[in-house]
Amino acid sequence: MKIAILGHGTVGSGVAEILWNRNSEVSSAAGKSLELGCILDIRDFSELPYSDRFTKDFSEILADPEIGIVAESMGGIEPAYSYLKAALEKGKSAVTSNKELVAEKGAELLSIARAHNANFLFEASVGGGIPLIRPLYSAMSAAGITEMAGILNGTTNYILTQMFRFGADYSAALADAQRLGYAERDPSADVLGWDACRKIAILSSLVWGKTLRPEEIPTEGIANITAEDVSAAEICGFSIKLLARAKLLEKGKIFARVSPALVRNGSPLSTVSDVYNAVLVRAETTGEVLFYGKGAGKMPTASSVIADIVECAKTEGNIGSVFWEDGAQSAAADTEALAEKYFIRARGLSKEDIFFLCPAAEIIGTEVFITPPLTACELSVLKEKINEHGVLLSKIPLFE
Amino acid sequence: MKIAILGHGTVGSGVAEILWNRNSEVSSAAGKSLELGCILDIRDFSELPYSDRFTKDFSEILADPEIGIVAESMGGIEPAYSYLKAALEKGKSAVTSNKELVAEKGAELLSIARAHNANFLFEASVGGGIPLIRPLYSAMSAAGITEMAGILNGTTNYILTQMFRFGADYSAALADAQRLGYAERDPSADVLGWDACRKIAILSSLVWGKTLRPEEIPTEGIANITAEDVSAAEICGFSIKLLARAKLLEKGKIFARVSPALVRNGSPLSTVSDVYNAVLVRAETTGEVLFYGKGAGKMPTASSVIADIVECAKTEGNIGSVFWEDGAQSAAADTEALAEKYFIRARGLSKEDIFFLCPAAEIIGTEVFITPPLTACELSVLKEKINEHGVLLSKIPLFE
Repeated sequence: MKIAILGHGTVGSGVAEILWNRNSEVSSAAGKSLELGCILDIRDFSELPYSDRFTKDFSEILADPEIGIVAESMGGIEPAYSYLKAALEKGKSAVTSNKELVAEKGAELLSIARAHNANFLFEASVGGGIPLIRPLYSAMSAAGITEMAGILNGTTNYILTQMFRFGADYSAALADAQRLGYAERDPSADVLGWDACRKIAILSSLVWGKTLRPEEIPTEGIANITAEDVSAAEICGFSIKLLARAKLLEKGKIFARVSPALVRNGSPLSTVSDVYNAVLVRAETTGEVLFYGKGAGKMPTASSVIADIVECAKTEGNIGSVFWEDGAQSAAADTEALAEKYFIRARGLSKEDIFFLCPAAEIIGTEVFITPPLTACELSVLKEKINEHGVLLSKIPLFE
Repeated sequence: MKIAILGHGTVGSGVAEILWNRNSEVSSAAGKSLELGCILDIRDFSELPYSDRFTKDFSEILADPEIGIVAESMGGIEPAYSYLKAALEKGKSAVTSNKELVAEKGAELLSIARAHNANFLFEASVGGGIPLIRPLYSAMSAAGITEMAGILNGTTNYILTQMFRFGADYSAALADAQRLGYAERDPSADVLGWDACRKIAILSSLVWGKTLRPEEIPTEGIANITAEDVSAAEICGFSIKLLARAKLLEKGKIFARVSPALVRNGSPLSTVSDVYNAVLVRAETTGEVLFYGKGAGKMPTASSVIADIVECAKTEGNIGSVFWEDGAQSAAADTEALAEKYFIRARGLSKEDIFFLCPAAEIIGTEVFITPPLTACELSVLKEKINEHGVLLSKIPLFE
């Protein structure tokens, strides 16, 4: 069986290298011979041993009956979407590392795959090299998953780790990440939380079977986190992580949120440092399970694309359990549906002020207290009251 | 398709409960209706809603053509081995939570399964409720795994956690674990490391395709670890864990070992506390990956048995990638093949003594130093030299 790769960038070139250099391991894992068939890229790569496999014309790939699997790593919605749609409609399976595409068009591409008895898989779209998507839809598919909390963006985790270790402030840590190539020149998609938001949208849609749209998830990045927040949290026994969370509520709605959050030392999420990613999953039968590994990088991500290629090659027909519906009704719960504890830093408040404003608060230091569980509305009332008596410096939810 | 359960103990009763109470989730995951067919147990369970499914005669299960999968959770080699062998020879698939059986008879049962185009799966035999075995043979099967290090025994991890948190000594922590039901009255299999040894034997055999026998793995338990060891390690920024490790050496041999080991704070293994388990996997393409969760307990373990049942029900024919060979030659490397750093506590040595005995040592405290990498032989020479000048209190390898 021949494999086509769309886009010979970081991930795509890694996929080509593994198919070429580790061909016997990959074929043996698939139980059949897999061959690097065709690579779509507008550039020339004449120095590569497989330079003869390049094409600039997608229609060649579409027309080749020997190509059974198309692996896309171009990024962005178009032309990735049109290409994979056309491939699936021809009965070819499609795999991708493109989280934007999966978050936006997942339900539709899954439905086209099902209609043509092919597969659409996307292990590499969340958590880079971590085997994550497949355990969720296979081993844990009957476990009754109730909640997920993930550190899903390596760039922001690197920045927060630097702030924690060296007391660096946000802009210095960001500049450092940019210098090392961990952050892009325009770091918005990472530091504003959009990347993590797309990824938790994918996990939630997959696990609970209903599309959760990125734009329905309240998303807050790390740009407002200060060195003082990190140090105050540390003194209290916490670290600050950008967490992407989703929780199944009783009525079948999903409470999802991306925001900085306090993670207690000793939690398995607390040791997830630098560019590593992890997802903590809570399920009725298994209790807590955590998956940890490199969330990005050429070879880890390519390795997950390869795992999907192997899965497609091994599988006859559509994998029924990889599917979610594009419901007319939103899967997202009202933001008032869940109350959370908050870590509050405020200046100019006496202990008496705090007891008066928030009687059930747990006072931790001179400027720090933890609230009882509050809904978004209750938090906003408290915020106003604090600002009448002093100055609210920060409010960060606690992950428990 | 009907499922038979052999043994209605802790795990078997959990499997029955999930098949009964979560039948629609399980059947939907399998893509076909799965039914609790028959439970083999010599006891009566007349109060259960499925009390009519019990039998005391295995030959009934064997003769029933509707039973396609046999799930064993009796423990021990016999009669589990004979029963599963007979089932596989009839073309029924077999799944088990029985690590002793898999470690001893895995190669043979896998070969019988292959010959009869059935499957023999054992997700629940290592790491309880953690999806671990399947990611190793599927997603990571072409990743080039080079090393594994696991906290695979919940009982000993609970004891070490108590010693770390409360400065408890070993016997008090063991008594506490026994009182809570985490340790058995005869705790030998756990505290002497045999349980962890069987589990790393299974992981190693699966990942590198050649039987590694438990008796070939040097195994040391935690009974000699003292409160002083734990506290000295803590001061130096380490915790002590019972680690089951296996490493692929250049010549294709496996260096495996079960022993207490020092894990640096900040390592993802360092936050694995209480009865939790975790396995750190290092692979060429993915880098470090970690799987974490409940290593024992009725529902987590039953959940993994269910995952195997679903996999067998979904799969047509034998899964080729779950297999290892019973080679005539041992897969185990010579114990001299790998050198490791050791954390040494010794009394009565001056700094000058230490520099003289072990010139490259890193001196950490008055009674504590870390050696450069030493083979078993070199360690034993150092041990003799230390005891000529002072008293060796402990020697614990460092996991790096």
